[in-house]
Amino acid sequence: MQAYTSATRKLKRRLGQVVDASRAGRWAASFDSSKISFLPAAVIIPRQEADIGVVLELANRHRVPVTVRGRGTTLMGSAAPVNGGWVIDMLRLNKISIDADAGMVHAQAGATTGDIQRAAAVEGWFYPPDPSSKEYCTIGGNIACNAGGMHGGKYGVTRDFIIALRGFLPTGGFVEWGTATKKFAAGFNLRDLWIGSEGMLGIVTGAVLKLVPQPAARWTLLTSFNDEAAALTAAKVLFRARVQPAICEFLDRESVLCAERATGKTVFPGQSGRPVILLELAGSKGELKEVEREVLAWAKQHTLAFKVARSRAQVEELWAVRRKCSGAMFELGDAKLNEDIVVPMRNYEKFARFLAQLKRSSKLPIPTFGHLADGNLHVNIMYHRANRAETKAAEHAVQKLMETVVSLGGAISGEHGIGLAKTPFLRIQHRPAQVKAMQAVKHALDPRGICNPGKMFGVVRIWKYPKLQIKLPWDHK
Amino acid sequence: MQAYTSATRKLKRRLGQVVDASRAGRWAASFDSSKISFLPAAVIIPRQEADIGVVLELANRHRVPVTVRGRGTTLMGSAAPVNGGWVIDMLRLNKISIDADAGMVHAQAGATTGDIQRAAAVEGWFYPPDPSSKEYCTIGGNIACNAGGMHGGKYGVTRDFIIALRGFLPTGGFVEWGTATKKFAAGFNLRDLWIGSEGMLGIVTGAVLKLVPQPAARWTLLTSFNDEAAALTAAKVLFRARVQPAICEFLDRESVLCAERATGKTVFPGQSGRPVILLELAGSKGELKEVEREVLAWAKQHTLAFKVARSRAQVEELWAVRRKCSGAMFELGDAKLNEDIVVPMRNYEKFARFLAQLKRSSKLPIPTFGHLADGNLHVNIMYHRANRAETKAAEHAVQKLMETVVSLGGAISGEHGIGLAKTPFLRIQHRPAQVKAMQAVKHALDPRGICNPGKMFGVVRIWKYPKLQIKLPWDHK
Repeated sequence: MQAYTSATRKLKRRLGQVVDASRAGRWAASFDSSKISFLPAAVIIPRQEADIGVVLELANRHRVPVTVRGRGTTLMGSAAPVNGGWVIDMLRLNKISIDADAGMVHAQAGATTGDIQRAAAVEGWFYPPDPSSKEYCTIGGNIACNAGGMHGGKYGVTRDFIIALRGFLPTGGFVEWGTATKKFAAGFNLRDLWIGSEGMLGIVTGAVLKLVPQPAARWTLLTSFNDEAAALTAAKVLFRARVQPAICEFLDRESVLCAERATGKTVFPGQSGRPVILLELAGSKGELKEVEREVLAWAKQHTLAFKVARSRAQVEELWAVRRKCSGAMFELGDAKLNEDIVVPMRNYEKFARFLAQLKRSSKLPIPTFGHLADGNLHVNIMYHRANRAETKAAEHAVQKLMETVVSLGGAISGEHGIGLAKTPFLRIQHRPAQVKAMQAVKHALDPRGICNPGKMFGVVRIWKYPKLQIKLPWDHK
Repeated sequence: MQAYTSATRKLKRRLGQVVDASRAGRWAASFDSSKISFLPAAVIIPRQEADIGVVLELANRHRVPVTVRGRGTTLMGSAAPVNGGWVIDMLRLNKISIDADAGMVHAQAGATTGDIQRAAAVEGWFYPPDPSSKEYCTIGGNIACNAGGMHGGKYGVTRDFIIALRGFLPTGGFVEWGTATKKFAAGFNLRDLWIGSEGMLGIVTGAVLKLVPQPAARWTLLTSFNDEAAALTAAKVLFRARVQPAICEFLDRESVLCAERATGKTVFPGQSGRPVILLELAGSKGELKEVEREVLAWAKQHTLAFKVARSRAQVEELWAVRRKCSGAMFELGDAKLNEDIVVPMRNYEKFARFLAQLKRSSKLPIPTFGHLADGNLHVNIMYHRANRAETKAAEHAVQKLMETVVSLGGAISGEHGIGLAKTPFLRIQHRPAQVKAMQAVKHALDPRGICNPGKMFGVVRIWKYPKLQIKLPWDHK
C-alpha cells in the first residue's frame, strides 16, 4: 500500500488538528463491521463541511484514495479503505434540525439515524427507515447504501425519504441536489444517483429528509405456522386484503430455534421451532380499530397460534424472539454469510422450496428471517471457518442463492449494498451493458478514481480475508 | 435541418411499416403542447420494445437525433424534435398488468396514467400521481419529467412510485434498472437517474410502479379567506397539526375571479374574488372521522367561510372552481407563461408578498394556484403576444420570479421539467459545478449526443418562436 507521505504532510498543513495520522487513529478507521483491516495513511475528522472540499482537492492532485466513514456499521466492507489513502470520519458533522411545519429534517451526514428519529418524534413526526444498527449508524451511511429496515414494506427505504442532498463531487466542487421542497423537476436527478452509490460518486455532507406523521397507535401480534410455506402463503392472504402492516417480520424454523435457545423458552408453549410472523400495525386509533378486526379474523383462519400484546411489557416479550435470534446463530457456526436478498412476492413459495433444498444439500444451518411486506429476507449461511468442507459448502451455497434469487426476479441486496462482500455477485444481477453504464458514470464524475476505490466493480471474496477478532458495540449479543 | 435521407432509408429497410415518413405523420409528431413545430425526418411507432434498440443502433451509426414522444402533452417543448431526425412515438407500447398481491403495476411506457389508475382501482389499489393531462399523458412521459399533480404533498410524485425501469441506453443496449421488489441496493442507481432525465439519458420502455391501498373514503371541503397571506398562514396551521390532506389546492384572488367568470357565479355568495383552499381528505372511515373533526375546528377558526360536500354532485360543484380557472385565464391575455415553481413552506408569506409586488410592478395579470402541501404553485403570467410592452413585461416578470424562487430556497420547476421552456433559468437553479456534472453524465451515457438533443443545457427563449394556432384535446376549455 502507498504511504502518501508528502500528500498527507500537505493536508496537515492545510487542515491542522483535523488530520489524525496516529497509529491508534488510523487503526480505528482501518475496518468496518466486516472486520477486515486496511491501514489508511491518515484520518480526517472534519469540523466543518468545507474541510471535505480541501481533502478532495489535494486527493485529486496527488491521486490519494478517499474513503468516507459514518460509524463503520456496514457488514459489506463498504467503508474499509482497501487501497489505503485517507479516511474521512463524519463523527463531528452531526447537526440535526426539524422543520415541524413542513415535516422535514435537516441533518448533517454524521447524525445517527436514532438521533434523527428521536428529534422527529419530539415534534410529532416519524422517520421510518430503521436499520438494526440505528443507534450507531449515520444517515450519511444510510444514504450511501440506501438502507432499509423493518418498516420498508409500508413506508419505504432511505431513498423514499430523501428530499435534498448537499456535498462534494469527487473532483471537489460543492453541490446541492434538490431543495427543501417535496417537488423538484429541474435538471438531471443526481441526488438519487448519489443514493446507494456507496461514496463512489461524491460525498454527502448534509440531507433534507421527509417525515410522516407519528402514528397515534401501534398494535403487535405474534403468529406461528406449521411450516415456512404456510407462513408465506398466509402473509400473501393478508396483503391481498390490502392490509399494510408497519412491520411484518418472518422467522423460519431455524431462526426460531435460535431465539428459543437464547431466551430459554419456547415462543408458543408446546410448539418449539414453529416459523413465526411478528406483525405491527400502526395508524390512527380509528384506523387501527378497523384493521385489528380484519387481522384477528385472518389470524384465526390462517395461523397455528397467535398472541396479541396487551401491554408495553408484552410487546417487548414478543420482540425478544426477533431480537435474540441473530446473536444465537453463532452457536451454529463461527462464521456467517448474511445475505440480504430480495424475492418478489409472486415467488415466495418457490423460494421457500429452494431454501429447504439448499439447507439439505449444503448440510449447513441457514436460519432465515426478514421483512415479508417487501420480500427482503436475511439468509444467514452459518459455518465454521476452520472446517474446509463447511467453508466450501458455504461458498457454493451463497453462489447458488444469488443465482436463484436473480432468476426468480429478485435482488442480490435489498439494503446492505455491494461494498466488497457482494462484488462476486454484481454481474449475476446486472447485464454487461448495465455494468458498463455504471462504470461510465463513475469515470465521468470521478475521472481520477479516488472516491472509495476497489468497491463495487472488482471481485473480492471477502470471506477469504483474515477477520479481526473484536467485538463492536452493535454486534448482536 | 438535415434530411437524414440515407439513414431513414436504412431504417425503413430494417423496420418496415413501423416507420412513417409521410408528411402528415411527420407533421403530427413535429410539436408538443408548447405548439412549436420542428419537422422530423421520420416517425417510428414501434410494435415491440426491441424496435427501439434497432432505431438507436442506426441513429448512433448515422448520428441521427432521436426524440421520444408519449402523447406530447408537455408544455415545456421537451418532446419537440428541435434538431429534426427521428421521433419515436410510444403509442402502441401500452400494455398494463396488475400484481394485486404485491400492489404493483407493470406498464409499458406508452400506457396512459389514467388507464393505469383505473386498472389499479379495479383491484382496490391506488396510483396517486395525477398530472392534469392524465387522460392523455403516458407513464413514460411522466417518468421523463418526474410528473406530479395534486396528490404530491401527501403521496409523493412519479419518482416515489417507480420500483423498476427497463429500456435502452442511448448507445442501444437493453437494460433493466431495479427489480419488481420494494427494496434494491445493488449497484449505482441509474433507475432514478433516468427519472426526470427527459429522454436524454436513455429511453424507458417499461416500468414497475408501486401502488397504495385505495382509500375507503374521501371528504371534500372548500374554504375562503380574506387574502392570500391569510390562506397560506392558515394552511400552515393545518400542517402543523399533522393533518395530511390528500389534496390541498390554493387559488389566489385572480384565479378565483377567472373561475367565477367561467362558471357565471360567485364561489361563496357575496364574497366574489376571495382566495380559496380546496381540501380533500382520504383514508379509512375510522381515520377520516377523527380528521374531519379536527379540520372543521380549524375551518371555524381560520377561514372566512367554508362548505363541505355532502354528495357526489356537491363534490363536483366544489371542484368546478379549480377546473374552470385555467381556461378562463385566456380572457386576460392570449399568451401564458405557466411556471410550476416550488416554494418551501417556511417562505410562503414572503413569496405571497413578492407575488403581490410582481403583479403591481409588471402591470400584468398573474393568476396563481397550486398545491400547498408541497409548495408547488402554478404562476400564470398572462399577456398579449402582439403587445410589445406586455411581452417585455412578461419576460421580465418570469426572470424575476425564477430568481426570487431560488433565493427563497425553492425550485424553478416542480413537475414540468426543463425541456426548452425553462432552459433560460437552469443556471439560476444550478451552480456551474452542478451543470458540469450533469453534462459529464450525459456525455458518458450518450457520447454521440443523439438522445433528445437541444434540451436542458442550451438556452432557448421559447416565447419568441411562432406558435401553432391549434387546439389540442387536453387544452383547457
